[in-house]
Amino acid sequence: MKYWSQTYIPTLKESPSDAEIASHKLLLRAGLVRKLGGGLYTFLPAGLKVMQKISQICREEMDRAGAIELAMPFIHPSENWVEGPRWAAAREIMYRVDHAGAGKGRAKEPEFVLGPTHEEIITPLVKTEITSYRDLPKNFYQIGTKFRNEIRPRYGLMRAREFVMKDAYSFDTTDEGAIISYGKMKEAYTAFFNRCGLKTIPVEADTGVMGGSFSHEFMVPAPVGDDDIVYCEQSGYSANREKATSGIVPKDLADAAPAGALEEFATPGIVTIAALAAAPYNVAADQQFKTLVYMGDGKPFLVILRGCDDLEEAKLGALGFQLWRPATPEEIEPVMGAKPGSLGTVKGTIKNPGALAGIFADHAIRLIGNGTTGANKDGFHLRNVNVTRDLEITRFGDFRSVRAGEPCPKCGAPLKIDRAIEVGHIFKLGTKYSEKFGAVYTDDQKQSHPMVMGCYGIGISRTLQAVIEQSNDADGIVWPWQVAPWQVLVVNLDPQDAAAKDLCAKLAAAAESAGAEVLIDDRAERPGVKFKDADLIGLPLRLTVGGKGLKEGIFEMKWRRAKEITKVPIADAERVVAEAVRQAAQA
Amino acid sequence: MKYWSQTYIPTLKESPSDAEIASHKLLLRAGLVRKLGGGLYTFLPAGLKVMQKISQICREEMDRAGAIELAMPFIHPSENWVEGPRWAAAREIMYRVDHAGAGKGRAKEPEFVLGPTHEEIITPLVKTEITSYRDLPKNFYQIGTKFRNEIRPRYGLMRAREFVMKDAYSFDTTDEGAIISYGKMKEAYTAFFNRCGLKTIPVEADTGVMGGSFSHEFMVPAPVGDDDIVYCEQSGYSANREKATSGIVPKDLADAAPAGALEEFATPGIVTIAALAAAPYNVAADQQFKTLVYMGDGKPFLVILRGCDDLEEAKLGALGFQLWRPATPEEIEPVMGAKPGSLGTVKGTIKNPGALAGIFADHAIRLIGNGTTGANKDGFHLRNVNVTRDLEITRFGDFRSVRAGEPCPKCGAPLKIDRAIEVGHIFKLGTKYSEKFGAVYTDDQKQSHPMVMGCYGIGISRTLQAVIEQSNDADGIVWPWQVAPWQVLVVNLDPQDAAAKDLCAKLAAAAESAGAEVLIDDRAERPGVKFKDADLIGLPLRLTVGGKGLKEGIFEMKWRRAKEITKVPIADAERVVAEAVRQAAQA
Repeated sequence: MKYWSQTYIPTLKESPSDAEIASHKLLLRAGLVRKLGGGLYTFLPAGLKVMQKISQICREEMDRAGAIELAMPFIHPSENWVEGPRWAAAREIMYRVDHAGAGKGRAKEPEFVLGPTHEEIITPLVKTEITSYRDLPKNFYQIGTKFRNEIRPRYGLMRAREFVMKDAYSFDTTDEGAIISYGKMKEAYTAFFNRCGLKTIPVEADTGVMGGSFSHEFMVPAPVGDDDIVYCEQSGYSANREKATSGIVPKDLADAAPAGALEEFATPGIVTIAALAAAPYNVAADQQFKTLVYMGDGKPFLVILRGCDDLEEAKLGALGFQLWRPATPEEIEPVMGAKPGSLGTVKGTIKNPGALAGIFADHAIRLIGNGTTGANKDGFHLRNVNVTRDLEITRFGDFRSVRAGEPCPKCGAPLKIDRAIEVGHIFKLGTKYSEKFGAVYTDDQKQSHPMVMGCYGIGISRTLQAVIEQSNDADGIVWPWQVAPWQVLVVNLDPQDAAAKDLCAKLAAAAESAGAEVLIDDRAERPGVKFKDADLIGLPLRLTVGGKGLKEGIFEMKWRRAKEITKVPIADAERVVAEAVRQAAQA
Repeated sequence: MKYWSQTYIPTLKESPSDAEIASHKLLLRAGLVRKLGGGLYTFLPAGLKVMQKISQICREEMDRAGAIELAMPFIHPSENWVEGPRWAAAREIMYRVDHAGAGKGRAKEPEFVLGPTHEEIITPLVKTEITSYRDLPKNFYQIGTKFRNEIRPRYGLMRAREFVMKDAYSFDTTDEGAIISYGKMKEAYTAFFNRCGLKTIPVEADTGVMGGSFSHEFMVPAPVGDDDIVYCEQSGYSANREKATSGIVPKDLADAAPAGALEEFATPGIVTIAALAAAPYNVAADQQFKTLVYMGDGKPFLVILRGCDDLEEAKLGALGFQLWRPATPEEIEPVMGAKPGSLGTVKGTIKNPGALAGIFADHAIRLIGNGTTGANKDGFHLRNVNVTRDLEITRFGDFRSVRAGEPCPKCGAPLKIDRAIEVGHIFKLGTKYSEKFGAVYTDDQKQSHPMVMGCYGIGISRTLQAVIEQSNDADGIVWPWQVAPWQVLVVNLDPQDAAAKDLCAKLAAAAESAGAEVLIDDRAERPGVKFKDADLIGLPLRLTVGGKGLKEGIFEMKWRRAKEITKVPIADAERVVAEAVRQAAQA
């Protein structure tokens, strides 16, 4: 048992003005963390206890799944990253480490970086350590701090510069083995979040800069989430927005017949979809082709969408570029022959088609069939543009953003979209990293093959905050039993009274022998302050001792989740408290 | 219990060539760590288990002493350091953190630094959080990773760039309170090292760049240590070399009477103590004055020693400069009027005495009385130099290095000097940081005072290696019971045999119920390999199952520390194992 006076839980009446969301406010008000700088938080005793509990639950589930704990350094030699497959993208979000002596003749790349994740460290380690199929499969995990150059840290621990993660890396001999390892992690994640009392939705996700063949995110629905999840209540389909598709293009859609001859027309000053949709042109947005120019690893490429659709930028990841970004007007004109607003991909109209890395079209433009597009001549467009007859297309793909209400790709029912927070992410990586780093094994025929990898992350500090975001009310946090900093709060209303003090110790001892952790509020504060703080810090079970009740031979028992207060005769104290603790622990 | 095949303990027959000392070799050979880069180590499963055990012992002792655990960020805004009292010195040993976008217009100081210690973080936090004497004393601690720009990392975890420390910071209202807090930490440290099975010697130490009024280091004697400890076996006096004094200058030494008139003599080409001690001059080194020029925070100052003595640079810390270093010849000549080799401090001979920040003389020059010194004129010296009559001295102090065999300052017995490793360090800081950051409290009279601080560090990862350095033999590590990754190793010589497997599980279960952690070697390796590995990884108790013994109804029990092997009848297995575990745990 711990006395409030012997630990440090500085509750606040008001929340600091820069806390925007409920969980961030409660982290501060309940004395769990304090801000050191943007995206940098000190964990105060109660916050640290929760973090240690969540870490321990995670450790147990990883161990149960056969993963092996180790701990890699936070500082990485940057050569590991430079040699790896994603330095160009990763260097933007990584902190660089050097020292005062490195001021002059500073190298282009720093000597060290701070790890945002550890594929570039574990793969070379495994390459050196493990060479035979006999020593595979292996899944290594660690629980530790990660660093990310967040330009705009916000929402407390949700988007921080320094945060705690569990990351795991599996190594298998075969693709089938890798899928089994992936499945074990998916199960362990589900068990972990359940034990933390956190409701999550696993969704299909984009593999992004990680590469790899497929992935799932574990999402916590929350209005303040950074991500959108797209889901169908009927079929159970779910995916994050970056990966989500819809069924708006029928599978059996026939290519449209040409509607007439291509025809150029003057559109002076018209450079937006909306302007062309208005009088006097009246070309509906869903009958326009939208032509976007991007730079992929330094080369321009085109993406064609319907005028009414938005590009889902992450989907460009399927094209195989490491880095991509919108081209600047200066980059566009020499290639296309026109400025943005008059661009198109009709054969023969692009000024320098040889400069392009490709022309990629969203499937949905087939719904247009014949439409209107830019003529690659400032102030001119073309009409009667037939997809099959007129457009230069390297490859069709899914590039558009799904909208709520579109048909589910599985069953056709309307899709829903909600904001959500990502708390876990599992990837089947394949051989991207093992090939790059030469992490190979020899099979029983002495043949050499790259190991098949998976990687698996849980945001431990983010999970902590997500629990609060999902589990609070107007008065404060409502901790789930397993991750509460202490499960039982004994409130002593008469801390100077020997009988009250004795009873508190007795109740605490009873709760402890039943397996709970106990905090005793022994502060010299008014009852009102104590009750308000009790609700704010949100321990699941409150036992109140003192005042009139004590004289009458009773104490009070109240669950944080409920309104009712039970009066318990002191004679029954041990039995009742032990029973309550056991029930709560099993729930 | 854990099966060897389900964890990862990659033992090595040979130790990598860059491992210089026994403990570093054993860390690698016993599969505890692997090197990622200079001073950067990955902790493999067994190494991490030891680190977690040592951390937990430390946590328990800190909690017992009333300290409160929290966790501060690793990344610090550099303004915290710039505002603090030791940025000039600390910036040299700190890593700087920035990002790819910071390339152009890079500020002189980085946005962030990596914390080597946390005074600059905790003091402003406490300043904001705690304002009343009612909330004091408080002692906050954390266990976490620290970073240090080691130019020459070596000896494995001993001098690493990234390492794990426990750091604690106490805040008291009075000096007496601070001394009590200091005493509690000293006790807790002693208990901690004892529980880790590590013999340490607490020595008086220099406060160095930390500042503060006094400090103790906890040292582990070891030939490869970075530090020297000076001690007296008779009086118990002990101090590190930087702080050690001896009794060579008698307390009642009278100032010498002048031996004659000052006399200049030509010493062409003579620029060393040794040369002047040789023919034809024959001035014994202990009759020469040695004049050293240093720069202190940019200003020159002088230190005078006997010619036979060496300067103990750290002792210059007593002079109040933040940074000091030897002056260059270019800095010396304009001030002194001569080059090094002809310097002195006889009144009137210094060219520009106004430029000096002071002239500081070691007490031992009083043993010379009348001697020889440079004339501040190249190629000339002065003889009959009387300390009292002739020398300009701002202040006397203790600046020389103690030598083995000199008299103990307490009892006069000869001092000994040994190499040692520092594993813990406690400082009484006073108000240096609280004044700088404004960490004040109001007393019961509403008067405001700076808090009186202490700070306390334990090198957790260094302790791990120190245990190995102190506890090993030719065959491998000999783990103390409390910090062994597992306490009991069950060696299965016939892993394919069902009876052997069953007995192993039974022995493991018996050891576990008695409170031990068990590793079962179930590998398909020859007995010779298993026994060699058993000695190498050094678990305290080995139980061997299989082969002839199993058929005869016995298993073998052997302590790692001992040579004898006991044959135990299987029928007695549970009792004997439980008994052995209980005895070892209490030892």
